[in-house]
Amino acid sequence: MTVEHTAVLVRYGEIGVKSRQTRRRMSRLLARHIRSALREHDIPFSNIRVEFGRIFVESKSAKRAATVISSIFGVVSTSPVVVTDATMESILETGVAVARESFGPGLSFAVGARRMGEHSFTSQEIREQLGARILNELDDLNLRVNLRSPDQIIYVEVRDKSSYIFTETVPGVGGMPTGSQGPVVCIVTGDASSAVAAYRIMRRGCVPVWLLFDTSGNSSVLRATVRSQVEALSRYIYNYDVLLYAVPYRRETRLLSELGRTLACLLCRRSILRVAREVLRREDADAIVTGDMIGEGQQGGLQQLQTIAEAVGGVPVLTPCAGDDVVQVTWEAVELGLSCQTDTCHACGIATQIGDESEVTLGSIIEAEESAGMLSPAEVVDRSEVVLVRGRRS
Amino acid sequence: MTVEHTAVLVRYGEIGVKSRQTRRRMSRLLARHIRSALREHDIPFSNIRVEFGRIFVESKSAKRAATVISSIFGVVSTSPVVVTDATMESILETGVAVARESFGPGLSFAVGARRMGEHSFTSQEIREQLGARILNELDDLNLRVNLRSPDQIIYVEVRDKSSYIFTETVPGVGGMPTGSQGPVVCIVTGDASSAVAAYRIMRRGCVPVWLLFDTSGNSSVLRATVRSQVEALSRYIYNYDVLLYAVPYRRETRLLSELGRTLACLLCRRSILRVAREVLRREDADAIVTGDMIGEGQQGGLQQLQTIAEAVGGVPVLTPCAGDDVVQVTWEAVELGLSCQTDTCHACGIATQIGDESEVTLGSIIEAEESAGMLSPAEVVDRSEVVLVRGRRS
Repeated sequence: MTVEHTAVLVRYGEIGVKSRQTRRRMSRLLARHIRSALREHDIPFSNIRVEFGRIFVESKSAKRAATVISSIFGVVSTSPVVVTDATMESILETGVAVARESFGPGLSFAVGARRMGEHSFTSQEIREQLGARILNELDDLNLRVNLRSPDQIIYVEVRDKSSYIFTETVPGVGGMPTGSQGPVVCIVTGDASSAVAAYRIMRRGCVPVWLLFDTSGNSSVLRATVRSQVEALSRYIYNYDVLLYAVPYRRETRLLSELGRTLACLLCRRSILRVAREVLRREDADAIVTGDMIGEGQQGGLQQLQTIAEAVGGVPVLTPCAGDDVVQVTWEAVELGLSCQTDTCHACGIATQIGDESEVTLGSIIEAEESAGMLSPAEVVDRSEVVLVRGRRS
Repeated sequence: MTVEHTAVLVRYGEIGVKSRQTRRRMSRLLARHIRSALREHDIPFSNIRVEFGRIFVESKSAKRAATVISSIFGVVSTSPVVVTDATMESILETGVAVARESFGPGLSFAVGARRMGEHSFTSQEIREQLGARILNELDDLNLRVNLRSPDQIIYVEVRDKSSYIFTETVPGVGGMPTGSQGPVVCIVTGDASSAVAAYRIMRRGCVPVWLLFDTSGNSSVLRATVRSQVEALSRYIYNYDVLLYAVPYRRETRLLSELGRTLACLLCRRSILRVAREVLRREDADAIVTGDMIGEGQQGGLQQLQTIAEAVGGVPVLTPCAGDDVVQVTWEAVELGLSCQTDTCHACGIATQIGDESEVTLGSIIEAEESAGMLSPAEVVDRSEVVLVRGRRS
């Protein structure tokens, strides 16, 4: 008997703890994203259904489908499964064939089983009988049973009239389905922390609106780095348009540089948040996300934060990396496959290190802002290039 | 020859990347915290000195000292060391004695060596000669050399006139020395995420001012949980007073409950942040820290965030757990040894789940706030009990 994996079992975690109504909305969202992901990757499938707190996807390319689905936000894990009837004889016959295909010789094994619905046998009977049958029929493999810490496990899930048998589980990215929360404006600077901050919030169900302040003038390194980051991260998003606002910012940083570096950095950060708020309003987003880390670089001074936050009072600024250090965040960026720049905040060429700003008062800052001759946030956004990084698919 | 560990070598990481001035300030801060920690734990020591980007602590109880020092913010790792002269003969003799004491039989080993200062031998010569001597003199242990992935390693650090020999490295908590950033107001609710959020920001160099909203009335479970959390976390802080503001909040939640649950929750969160801002002003703190996680519980709705943030426009609210899920955060709390409650936000007894608040306008919220008859933030803080959770030591 040859076995064929014809479906994917998709597990989702946190959705399960919500109210019934929320749960239904979220599992439907997730099913929709799965459909789009499979279409985008040209993976054939015939049916996607939500039942018993799992999603089943019928596909002749179940192994490829399981991998693609595992990187959709909200998915805890996936397994390509072999489908058979919910009779003990079918389970035993198919179970032995699956074990024959995937078990390695000389290793220990165990059988896992769970059941939902009415059947003439218990889960424990599946475990005992399939275990005995595998030992008997695959005696050439020299297997042994080990329930405590087996080298390999075969699982049987029986649901009403069908049984799903599998040995492989692909870990998913977790989080919540995209669109279960509103859009957020993610300021991306090309460094690791702003990209990781965006990923973490996207993973909670938010659609990003990317915002790049292009201080680089003719050099395209910054733009290329950010572009590659937002393209890689946007691939996690299905069924929503993902936009990048590329704001020309060289003129503004030139004006700021005339103020001296301490004032320049504070004003720059205030100005950046104000532009982000303008984008937030235009895109009807709910929050701004930054990669700020306390105590790292010139953005990390906690004392400055108050001066900076004052500029956009009332708009939520999420700081998911506030408690991280640069080593952790860089590591996470590498794991996400992102290429990053360091010291991107110096792209303007003004600052090397923030000086002593204890003398700087909010009054002097506001005065400097008024006389610096900078564009208004609306004017800056009007001049920005808006790129569709990734189009909605259906 | 018996060996005696008489000093601790303390490594600090991120401090090393700062400017010279900042680095000096931070390593002095760290040395001060080490002194206080050793005094508090009754560990005798005779000298603490900063040199070559490391801190050396002389102590007859070097092993205990290494453990205590490893949990001070800013410390990357510690090693109890045996001190000897910077001559090859002393290094070889002491090195063999240290290996004799700590090496297990039948295992592979390697010698690590580094040198700062002028000496008549190179690091490579230390590695070769000590390796050969150990193989020769400890032939009863049946050791073998493995430079790629040794089972055990003996390290020699030579600095000017002294050599430090060790085999053990205790991982430290990392981060930045306490006091390198300003104080922050940490709202603690008894759940895992608010405690973890506080820990992460404390680890970046901030001193916490704890803020508890006591909705529990006569029940002392909430107070006891929060009390045990803040006592455990405050133990990481040396040389600063750590305060807990316990705000009686039962009357306020009663008033809020009369508004219906949707309005009640929004108003409650706005009110809580305003009280936190009042504490921030009185304690001259730089930011408010919350355990908010996007998409978790009733605090997680991103749409509400804007309404909530509006209440304290201009004050930085740090959300280091914004991108986490409850599983990650609970795990981290367990690793910190904290006992936590779940669903603490329901302690008020009003909400089970936030309803549909799409109908709620900012105008209606402000109107409700004006008519709810709640105390002003200043009045609430005036009524709070301020407890010295941990006193400054010197």
